[in-house]
Amino acid sequence: MATIKDVAELSGVTVTTVSRVLNNRGYLSEKTKKKVSEAIIALDYHPNEMARSLAQKQTSLLGVIVPSLLHPYYSECINALEKHASSHGLKLLVCNAQRSPQKEAEYIDMLKANKVAGLVLCTNSRSSVRLLANLPVVTLERSISSNVPAIVCDNTQGGQLAARHLIAQKCTNLVMISGNRSTEERANGFAKMCEQVHIPYKILKTNQSQFNHLDYTDLIQEIFTDPAVDGVFASSDVIATQVIQACHKKGLSIPEDMKIVGFDDVELSRMVSPRLTTIHQPIEELCKEAVQTIIDWDKERGKEQIILPVRLVQREST
Amino acid sequence: MATIKDVAELSGVTVTTVSRVLNNRGYLSEKTKKKVSEAIIALDYHPNEMARSLAQKQTSLLGVIVPSLLHPYYSECINALEKHASSHGLKLLVCNAQRSPQKEAEYIDMLKANKVAGLVLCTNSRSSVRLLANLPVVTLERSISSNVPAIVCDNTQGGQLAARHLIAQKCTNLVMISGNRSTEERANGFAKMCEQVHIPYKILKTNQSQFNHLDYTDLIQEIFTDPAVDGVFASSDVIATQVIQACHKKGLSIPEDMKIVGFDDVELSRMVSPRLTTIHQPIEELCKEAVQTIIDWDKERGKEQIILPVRLVQREST
Repeated sequence: MATIKDVAELSGVTVTTVSRVLNNRGYLSEKTKKKVSEAIIALDYHPNEMARSLAQKQTSLLGVIVPSLLHPYYSECINALEKHASSHGLKLLVCNAQRSPQKEAEYIDMLKANKVAGLVLCTNSRSSVRLLANLPVVTLERSISSNVPAIVCDNTQGGQLAARHLIAQKCTNLVMISGNRSTEERANGFAKMCEQVHIPYKILKTNQSQFNHLDYTDLIQEIFTDPAVDGVFASSDVIATQVIQACHKKGLSIPEDMKIVGFDDVELSRMVSPRLTTIHQPIEELCKEAVQTIIDWDKERGKEQIILPVRLVQREST
Repeated sequence: MATIKDVAELSGVTVTTVSRVLNNRGYLSEKTKKKVSEAIIALDYHPNEMARSLAQKQTSLLGVIVPSLLHPYYSECINALEKHASSHGLKLLVCNAQRSPQKEAEYIDMLKANKVAGLVLCTNSRSSVRLLANLPVVTLERSISSNVPAIVCDNTQGGQLAARHLIAQKCTNLVMISGNRSTEERANGFAKMCEQVHIPYKILKTNQSQFNHLDYTDLIQEIFTDPAVDGVFASSDVIATQVIQACHKKGLSIPEDMKIVGFDDVELSRMVSPRLTTIHQPIEELCKEAVQTIIDWDKERGKEQIILPVRLVQREST
């Protein structure tokens, strides 16, 4: 029975490229598509065997480690990962590191001992990198090492889109609330766009304790120290929601007195009043790519980063 | 090495009772506590062996089947189950039945084939009951059979508390938005309280499609057909949040023109504006009891229902 590796060898491309042809994803030249298709026919290769052979070599468990299960972003990731994992016959083992590097390390040990088929890592701890040897692993929305493939969204583009939109809506003085290192690129894109068009802006940084408690109330008060501020870009919908609450408390009308853009586009953004304008992260597609990377695992292939585009969804807060 | 069963035998009580003494949970007479404590000392019993022996007989996987991973209530359940499972050395296998009885049945088969230590079932499908034989299983916030232990909150009390609070806040005409059968008791408690004090009320029933899409917008419009309505009790915080949005759209002030009470007390209730008054479900305790019931599993014991009390948390929506 031919495997995806046989197809890759015969057509002279990587396993990842074969998988891309099979799933019709990403940019591929017509020449590559033709070579791969010919190899598939020549070898009588059936792609459904992929998941099955993977399951037979190891358990059919896919591990996922998240920093928090209460944050709506990770709930939506787990929802999407479960969906794509189960479509490949994989079961999702959910681990909550609760932002503890030690708990994260223990979970990685446990997942290896349980012979999982792979791991989707949604935590930042670089100290765990050495533990990841011999385990198919992919990081979601963060890069921890050049040895570990990362699936991320285009955070720089997201920051630019948010700034451009607020400026187009006639805002003249902006604030961004930025999280930890995984949102740095959002801040960079935002700052660059403001500088291009000479719009004054300020960036407020959240700390770990605020993320742990999902409570940014104190930090948000700093927005109001400058009464000229008329637009806010928050690096998550959770933060944006609390900016809405703070504006209501201050008696500021949204979007008349203050325009607000979030990031993530989780369910929450449609549940608040006013509904939140936000940068849509392609969570479905990110998670699909993550599962696919595990399914197509190839020790020898390049550990490239896959970057997916984002888009702005305008609702009532701008 | 003494087991929890030896302690139960020597002290003449059930395994569940021993576990309750060890964990200091529920009502216990001083006499029972003394008997059990004496047996523990006499046998030199170490309760930590419990989880370990369980893990050695089977895998240390705990399955959980939920109807939706996007509904914040189930995210919080998974958060709490993961916490209590991992404190007993159990790993959480998360399955999303996506409200399909067939998917639910397939997951139960899969979990049995994977020799899980137990299953926490958060779905309603009664057709699955026959599949559950020989599997330690507990249902959370629903009863599906007298053969399956159920951990629930006091939903009747919750409905009563909501009605009593709205009436105390001078509401004179109430609407409740009630979900499927698991919220029937909330509706009964609510109705009973309204009838006791002769306050007019109406109950609107949601359908499955609304739950599937987490979108109750059309149903909520029915509240406004009677302009006398000045108080709403929603059977989930998700529904209550959409009532807030609808009131904002209609130009009604909360709480001046309309008072709103939710149910669940998930994070969302603190994130909306105004913050939501709601009935607090003890999700932490419910999940702790569920995991404990699996840990203490005893085929022969009575399949009792454990009912935990709820309380009202007043915020800004009343």
